[in-house]
Formats: sequence, C-alpha cells, structure tokens
Amino acid sequence: MTSKPTLAVVGATGAVGSAMLQMLTHHADVWGEIRLFDSPGAAGSKAAVRGEECEVLALGEGSEESFDGVDLALFLVPEAVAARWAPIAVAKGAVVVDTSTAFRGDPDVPLVVPEVNPHAARVRPRGIVASPGCTTLALIAAVGALHAEFGVAELVVTAQQAASGAGAGQAGVDALRAQLGLVAGDGELGTQPGDVRRAVGEDAGPFPGPLALNVLPWSGTAGEDGASSEEERVRDETRRVLGLPGLRIAVTCLRVPVVTGHSVSVHARFEHPVTVGRAHEVLATSPGVVLYDDPAAGDFPTPADVVGTDPAWVGRVRRSMDDERALDFFVCADNLRKGAALNALQIAESVVTDL
Amino acid sequence: MTSKPTLAVVGATGAVGSAMLQMLTHHADVWGEIRLFDSPGAAGSKAAVRGEECEVLALGEGSEESFDGVDLALFLVPEAVAARWAPIAVAKGAVVVDTSTAFRGDPDVPLVVPEVNPHAARVRPRGIVASPGCTTLALIAAVGALHAEFGVAELVVTAQQAASGAGAGQAGVDALRAQLGLVAGDGELGTQPGDVRRAVGEDAGPFPGPLALNVLPWSGTAGEDGASSEEERVRDETRRVLGLPGLRIAVTCLRVPVVTGHSVSVHARFEHPVTVGRAHEVLATSPGVVLYDDPAAGDFPTPADVVGTDPAWVGRVRRSMDDERALDFFVCADNLRKGAALNALQIAESVVTDL
Repeated sequence: MTSKPTLAVVGATGAVGSAMLQMLTHHADVWGEIRLFDSPGAAGSKAAVRGEECEVLALGEGSEESFDGVDLALFLVPEAVAARWAPIAVAKGAVVVDTSTAFRGDPDVPLVVPEVNPHAARVRPRGIVASPGCTTLALIAAVGALHAEFGVAELVVTAQQAASGAGAGQAGVDALRAQLGLVAGDGELGTQPGDVRRAVGEDAGPFPGPLALNVLPWSGTAGEDGASSEEERVRDETRRVLGLPGLRIAVTCLRVPVVTGHSVSVHARFEHPVTVGRAHEVLATSPGVVLYDDPAAGDFPTPADVVGTDPAWVGRVRRSMDDERALDFFVCADNLRKGAALNALQIAESVVTDL
Repeated sequence: MTSKPTLAVVGATGAVGSAMLQMLTHHADVWGEIRLFDSPGAAGSKAAVRGEECEVLALGEGSEESFDGVDLALFLVPEAVAARWAPIAVAKGAVVVDTSTAFRGDPDVPLVVPEVNPHAARVRPRGIVASPGCTTLALIAAVGALHAEFGVAELVVTAQQAASGAGAGQAGVDALRAQLGLVAGDGELGTQPGDVRRAVGEDAGPFPGPLALNVLPWSGTAGEDGASSEEERVRDETRRVLGLPGLRIAVTCLRVPVVTGHSVSVHARFEHPVTVGRAHEVLATSPGVVLYDDPAAGDFPTPADVVGTDPAWVGRVRRSMDDERALDFFVCADNLRKGAALNALQIAESVVTDL
C-alpha cells in the first residue's frame, strides 16, 4: 500500500467511540482519510478527530457504499449491528476489527491482544479480527506475561466491573449517577434491609438491582450452569488469547459503584515455582502493564486512579499464602480504553502495516 | 446457677454495641442484670436495652469493681482495651466473649462460631472465648456447612468489605458519606485519572485512599509477605474455626463503597465431587445460612439488601467452571450483626447454659 490507508470508525459517538477519537488524535497518525459512522440517529452530527470536525455518516439502508475504499474498519457497536455490518465492510475490501461479542467465539476470527498474541491477527479467514471484552482485557496482559515466564495452570478471578461497562452508551454511568444523587444526602441509608433498593426505586437502569452503596453479583445474561454470560466470556476469551483451550479457570463478575475502571482480583497457579521478585521483574518490563506495588506505602492501583490511562496497572503481587506455585495480585484498567478502544486500535495499527 | 446471670456489655455505645443492645432486646431474655460499659467519654450517658434506659458505666481507673458479680462480659471494644480489661473481668469471675483481635490467635482461647464449632467454647483455659472477625464470619457458616458435607481442601476468597468495618466507631461510615456528598453531584467525576482523589481531598478518613466511586485493594495494616493484616486474619481464623490448621487458603480483602454488609466471592475445592443440587440442600438446611439463588430471576444476595439481617445469605452457587470438586458462590452478611454482635451473643447464650 503506497498511500495511507483509509479508516472507518463505526460507532463514533458512543463512550468507546469518543475514547477512540481521542486516541486517534494522540497516536502516531498512520491513517489517510478517517470516516466516522454511527446509527442513523447520530448521523449528520459532527465529531472531532485529529483536530478536525468530521461529519458522522449514517449506518443504514443504502449506506453500504460508504465503505467503498475503506481499508480498515473499527467496529465499536453492539453485537447485532456488528454482525450485520462487519461482513458488508469486509465485502467492500476492508479488514474489520470488532469489539463486540459477535465474532469472539468464531474459530475463523482471531481473538487478539497485541501484547499477548499479536501474530494471531495475521490469519483472518473472514477478514475480521475480534477484540476481547473489557474484563478479559483488564487481566490478560499481566496474566499473559506471567504465563510466558511461569506457565499458567489455573486461574481464579473475581472482577469488579464499573458502571460504564453496562448498558448501551452512557446508560450505566447515567444510572449510577442518578442513584448516587438519590442516596448521597441521606445519612441513614445502607443500614436497614432493602432501604437502598427502596430509595433507588424500581428503575435501576441497566443493572439487576441498585448499584449505589451496593455490590451486584451478576452482570450480563444467564449462561450455562449458573454462570453469567460475562463470566463465560472471560473464561472463553482468556483461554483463546492464551492459546490454552483446556485452562482451568473460575470467574466471578461483580458490578460495583465505580464510573469507569474494571478491577480484578487474580489468583494464578503456575506450572513452575514462582517468586514475587521475578514476577515483579516480568511485570515491570511487560508492554501494556504498569507495576505499582508498595501497599505499605499506599502504592496500589485503584479504578478511580487509573481511569483515563492506557495500561493495565498491577499491584498487591504476593505469593499466594500457601502455595509456592501461585500468585495473588490485583489489576485495574480503564474498560473504555484498554478494555475496548485502545486494544482495537492497537490491533488496527498492527494490521495496517501488513496491508 | 439458680438466678439469671449478670451480663456486662463493654463498648455499649459504638456501632456494634448498638446492634448488641437491639439484639438483647429482641432475643429470648436469659439475662438478669445487664450492665453497660464504655470509655470514660461515653460514661454517664444512657442507652436503651430491653425497653429500659440504662446508665453507661465508665471503663477506667478504679472501675475494676464494677465487674463484681458479672457472670458473662461481652467485649465489643478495640484490641488494646480488650487486652487490658478482659483479664480483669475474668479475675472478677466473669466469662469473657471478646470480639477484638486481642485473643483470636491465643491457643488457650477458643475461637468460636456456634454454627460450626460450638463445643470449642466449653474449653477456655483463660476464661475467654474469642469471636472471629467480620469477614471470616460472613463466609464461615456456609463454608463450614459445605465442609461437613464434602470436606474442604482449598479456598480462594475475595472479600468486598463495607465502610462500617473500618476505623473506630462510625469513622468509616462518616468518611464514606462525606465522600459521597463531595462526588455525587459532579457529572464528570470518575472519568479522569485521580479526579475522585482530588475531589475527596487529602483526608480519606480511615481508608488508604478515596472510597467513593472506587475500590481499594487494601484494608488493615501490612502483614507478612505482601498480605494485609485483614487477609492474614481471614486465613488464620478460617483455619482455626474449621479445625484445619494446614488448609490452603488465598485471601484478598477489598474495601468497597458500601455502608454496611460484607460480601465474599468464594471458590472452594473439596475432597469429594460436588453437585449444585446437594450443595443447595446443605445450604438450605444449615443454621445461620439463607440460600437465595435464582440469578436469572434476579434472586441473589447483595449487601444493601441483607444489611440489618442476622444470617449469611448465599447465592450464585455453581460448579466451578472446570472442576467437579469445586464450587463458586457469593455470600453477604451484615458485618455489625453476624460479623460482630450476633456471633458474640450467640456464644454468650451458649456459654451461659453451662455456667
């Protein structure tokens, strides 16, 4: 390819789309034309990228031709929209990088995290590369680095998911803020059974109960055998990205009253004995990971501190209390950035050099 | 003993003390005189128990004789106060039930959860019975019941601790409410690195960082090998109560913006194969446990729903995704009730029948 490639951003006006346009503005500019797409309701509005206002094009009947000449299309839209439009973009000649759940389980679509399995993006029978979900992306760079060193044998993870990962667009964040407004002024709430539920009322937004002053042990829809769809995804995506289809992994996904920033408590058992010293060395030198680990001095990552940043932050690294082959640690990452927009853009930037 | 025993409540005006006085009012009345004690600052105030206002006696120089004739003393005070005054109460002839950390590791002090190891309370060389900490108490009734059925081999737990478990008295709750007041009205907070930390300011109360809109992966003080003191306690207490000194257990304690109600994500591996059906039967018939487990219908426990109730609520019970000997589940309990006052009172009620 001699001229710079043309990029399409599909879903440019949502929360992930906004993060993507920011990143496109600040990353090295490898793109020629950038076309923005969104649902017909957002079409005609403008969005800023690389310092310029761009018109948002409609994704709808007759807009197939808008993909003419697109070399790479970033899909930041829900599953149903991606399932319909990604093949159209491919038919028009684009490579698609999709952040939805539509293709993550398709054996003909590689599931890629550039820090862990970058080469997988080169084999894409359907012309599509999938990006994992936000919880997998929070933990996978750290787990992948430790796996390369020690060989992971088993994972037990509990994820604390932020509000912005729930619902369409801003629905989760809006619901959390509305609930906080209802409960913040009351000096008694949270002390009697169900009082927060009554204060929040029937409409808890995209959550299965009140999120303010609470922890909800459920996100997504019902999967198999009592797991939630979110838990199944973290399991399946982690196995695929690590290339360990039989990896033993137990996942619990909780929703917590945090705006943006997923955090994950990880218990990892390895094939080989581990030391915290060597784990620190590995994590401190791994791309996409920042080690921040001196808890006695107050140095540990928290979601509110790392929101808006690119890497996965790792702290609380310790030999698991009774097992010389196991480590416990805590990871935080921005679910809209590394957890969605950033990983997709990293894939796109790696793919485009091969186009 | 022919007349009803005399009870002392030491630390009657704190959060746990208030819960205790409520329970004494509503439980079957096995007590004769009830004497209330607290620090000299609270002395002279009055508190209601069994429908009567009682004067609060000072715990200070010269008040040793106030324990004359006390048969059982409930200690609901910090470690240093318990360490000094519990032996005095014992010397005056009382059996002490202590909720602090002062005696939990003492081999001559039994550590008791009446649903799990009731008989241990009968052997008390120092005249003291210890009650575990709030996080252990949230999970131990369910784990103990499953252990009796399947034989527990390994535990990996991540606890989400509520604000009321931190600091002295109401300090944790007051700090969380103050922080919520500072962040609730701002529609942008939680979206930029450290913005919540700046809004909350330097004084985060008893927490090692801002708790509103956040998750803090640290509670207590620094223990050994990177663990927090809270994590070490959950490990040690769980082993003692189950009578399994070599139990493999990994613990992570997080603090979350919940007023009261600890929740715990538990991964448990057993000696014998498990089924969810049998686990449900065991949990549904175990004292101190309520099974609430139909997540697709919205039935799972949350801290805000179970606060103010006595039992440990269990939901999300499922065979761990890849292990026929393992279960994952989620437990919630009120850290001021079962997690402190209730367990101590249950011990006292069991001890008093032997006096």
